Amino acid sequence: MKSIITISRQFGSGGREIGEKTAAELGYKFYDKEIIEKLAEKTGLAKEYIRKAGEYAPSKSIFSYAFIARNSDGTSITDYLYRVQRELVLEIAEEGPCVIVGRCADYILREHEGCLNVFIRGELDAKIERVTKLYSVNPDKAKKIMKDADKKRAINYKYCAEREWGAIKNYDMVLNSTAFGIEKCVDLICRAAK
Amino acid sequence: MKSIITISRQFGSGGREIGEKTAAELGYKFYDKEIIEKLAEKTGLAKEYIRKAGEYAPSKSIFSYAFIARNSDGTSITDYLYRVQRELVLEIAEEGPCVIVGRCADYILREHEGCLNVFIRGELDAKIERVTKLYSVNPDKAKKIMKDADKKRAINYKYCAEREWGAIKNYDMVLNSTAFGIEKCVDLICRAAK
Repeated sequence: MKSIITISRQFGSGGREIGEKTAAELGYKFYDKEIIEKLAEKTGLAKEYIRKAGEYAPSKSIFSYAFIARNSDGTSITDYLYRVQRELVLEIAEEGPCVIVGRCADYILREHEGCLNVFIRGELDAKIERVTKLYSVNPDKAKKIMKDADKKRAINYKYCAEREWGAIKNYDMVLNSTAFGIEKCVDLICRAAK
Repeated sequence: MKSIITISRQFGSGGREIGEKTAAELGYKFYDKEIIEKLAEKTGLAKEYIRKAGEYAPSKSIFSYAFIARNSDGTSITDYLYRVQRELVLEIAEEGPCVIVGRCADYILREHEGCLNVFIRGELDAKIERVTKLYSVNPDKAKKIMKDADKKRAINYKYCAEREWGAIKNYDMVLNSTAFGIEKCVDLICRAAK
């Protein structure tokens, strides 16, 4: 039985929902926003900053958003946050069975036995439809949000993990949520974990 | 119920075996070498040539292996073979439930309803071990065979399908056979097809 499931996902693919339902089905703890809250506690940084900086790319706007002279050793905030995030994900993994969404958890836990790394992708039209509904935006705006978010996730992943986000070699299982639907993805991940 | 399953696979990942066992489990017809035999019948080309040319890359050595002046319209043998292969895969898909390994079937059947496209990958060490045993070669030779075969598959796929072999967006499901083992992959594909 795999005791830790990491879920990486394209924006709009339903990966977060799939992760949450998988955790509920297996009786595992679920970590998504919970990690941001814990990181805010540990670092003193604002949640909004962590949400953007941890998940997305190190960028000028993010640095200007929360430039603090915390580290006298010259470590950038991005590196500092990643270090705390890494420690936190390793702690969470020790605590017991869980599903972790995003946060480079697949990379951070790469040496961890009993870890199932999943990537959720979706077809463009289906993702646009999902984002349009969830964020009450028009399809063009939805497409832009998605593209931007995935680009930033890829850059952040490359920066922290030094490998390619969404490349098949990082994952044990990749599922197309458009082909299967949310419930079937949950079923397949649970089956894979057993 | 998905009535057609296409299996693309890294060399040494056990994808062919997984495809065969999935077909047996579901009571589907299985197409791998059978396609080469049918293509040889239809084209008059040698099986060995088809095995190399259809699966692998259009290369000088392949052209010199079986240069025949079949097509007065100037179509290359590669293009000619792909056209016959495409017609054959479409015919097979009409005949009833089946599992098709390789042959760009995922691309050829991209408009086909009820098609489940699977990619099987594996970890390098596990693939080397498998190839070492299956082909009675040393690990260095196994690594070379694998690298060469996957490179040629990628080039052939790029040539015929004009897209990237092994890129997640082509597949509904990607499985790491090293993480799951052969039987579990069969189980997950059967579950996904249902």
